[in-house]
Amino acid sequence: MWFHERSYYNTFSMGWKVKNVLHSEQSKFQKIEVLDTDALGKLLLLDGKTMVSEADEFVYHEVMAHIPYSVSRKCDHVLIIGGGDGGVVREFAKHQSIKTIDLVEIDERVIEVSKEFFPQCTSALDDSRVTIHAKDGFEFIKKKKNHYDIIIIDSTDPEDFASGLFTKEFYNDVYNALTEDGIMMNQTENPFLDEFDIKKIYSNMRKSFPFVHSFFAPMIIYPGVYWTFGFSSKKYGPQDLNPVKRYEMEALQRSLKWYNQDWHKGAFQLSNYHKQKIGLI
Amino acid sequence: MWFHERSYYNTFSMGWKVKNVLHSEQSKFQKIEVLDTDALGKLLLLDGKTMVSEADEFVYHEVMAHIPYSVSRKCDHVLIIGGGDGGVVREFAKHQSIKTIDLVEIDERVIEVSKEFFPQCTSALDDSRVTIHAKDGFEFIKKKKNHYDIIIIDSTDPEDFASGLFTKEFYNDVYNALTEDGIMMNQTENPFLDEFDIKKIYSNMRKSFPFVHSFFAPMIIYPGVYWTFGFSSKKYGPQDLNPVKRYEMEALQRSLKWYNQDWHKGAFQLSNYHKQKIGLI
Repeated sequence: MWFHERSYYNTFSMGWKVKNVLHSEQSKFQKIEVLDTDALGKLLLLDGKTMVSEADEFVYHEVMAHIPYSVSRKCDHVLIIGGGDGGVVREFAKHQSIKTIDLVEIDERVIEVSKEFFPQCTSALDDSRVTIHAKDGFEFIKKKKNHYDIIIIDSTDPEDFASGLFTKEFYNDVYNALTEDGIMMNQTENPFLDEFDIKKIYSNMRKSFPFVHSFFAPMIIYPGVYWTFGFSSKKYGPQDLNPVKRYEMEALQRSLKWYNQDWHKGAFQLSNYHKQKIGLI
Repeated sequence: MWFHERSYYNTFSMGWKVKNVLHSEQSKFQKIEVLDTDALGKLLLLDGKTMVSEADEFVYHEVMAHIPYSVSRKCDHVLIIGGGDGGVVREFAKHQSIKTIDLVEIDERVIEVSKEFFPQCTSALDDSRVTIHAKDGFEFIKKKKNHYDIIIIDSTDPEDFASGLFTKEFYNDVYNALTEDGIMMNQTENPFLDEFDIKKIYSNMRKSFPFVHSFFAPMIIYPGVYWTFGFSSKKYGPQDLNPVKRYEMEALQRSLKWYNQDWHKGAFQLSNYHKQKIGLI
């Protein structure tokens, strides 16, 4: 038995051999499935799209958390929109100085299913600093002003109920919810299989943020693997690593599977292709 | 109609929608096919494995040529083993100071089919500096001593007649064929779908070369996309860009699709995962 995900206007397919279907339900928002695969171990699907696998989840979760943390000066309050699997929360929770971590996941069932099948991801959701809000991130953010030091948009593709999370209105609300040197991180799709107009996504980000950068990390389960991410900020660029955090990060990164600060600095050195796709050249 | 390539012990599949089969033959060495795909344009297959596509060939060919050229001091003589599509030759031929470019391709039919269907790749094969040798690279290299400044191993996977190109005996012959500050480049597979023991490949390289480095570039047509490459050298590391070539490279890279020297420097900053897979940590 195989699971195939078709993308890029139905011209590309990625497939994984499946041992078992461990879970399948229709939540209020989407179809949630968990497969047991030969290559990846457990694999979470939302509406038939790959979201999280046991084998490679560390890449996305580590880069989303440790890149902005390494740059941030004050980092008391963190918000994650989406990301009901808990992986990004787990990585932020490794930093003891963070005071609160808010997780806004529209679909509570994603959290419950993740707790059952991906305990390696959800392990920090019961940390006393973490508050889970089962709400629409698009609405949640409008009420917050000058509060969060880092905001992570851990969203699905710009379709259906996630499409609002790629608009200039939303990025403006995120900007307003951030403190004066705040940082927004978001996933910005695959430029080789550019189905969602990456240039437009970056153009929207630039309408709100003075500094918009991009980097790449591989997501072996996502269509075309070469995944781009955005780093948008009010004050500090991605190379402005906070020197005060250097020793903390050097100690931590010995136990991380992907992130280290040398990689961080190199990852923002973009190829001509990457620059062109996000509208820089 | 779809073309699917299965890999990683038959647990992973990548597929491309096909408009037409443009060519199919059994050469003395392998099955050679050219497909016309919706997403990639023309796609060359050897024994059912993706080799070159019109849409993304620039990535592999630019990084294989311009990384070692940028580091090299003297660069009179270049050897490419494999690479019958001509793409790496095309990129080296952009450097006017190179005196000779030898291409050793075991299967002449790959060159002929590429000339017919991938003229964008083969455009420099009639350059007066280029000599094509329809020979086995494994045998060819044994007769060369202290001659080439750069040697590129543009091979298929470590299977069948290409498996010799990943052995320590071969790397030792390459070392001997290189001049005193020579550089070897090779493709070293995907670490996430590690079917060919990448750690062993790098261990073999280290037995011959004092400096062995690795970087990544995306090959959207190869299984799992995240593709690693080796940079092995006798004297200069990949960060020792030749300052004399700086202006030439700055001018050239304005017309390149992937390579630029900032990206070059960043690409060798490895994640913990990449380091671990090649035996560095």
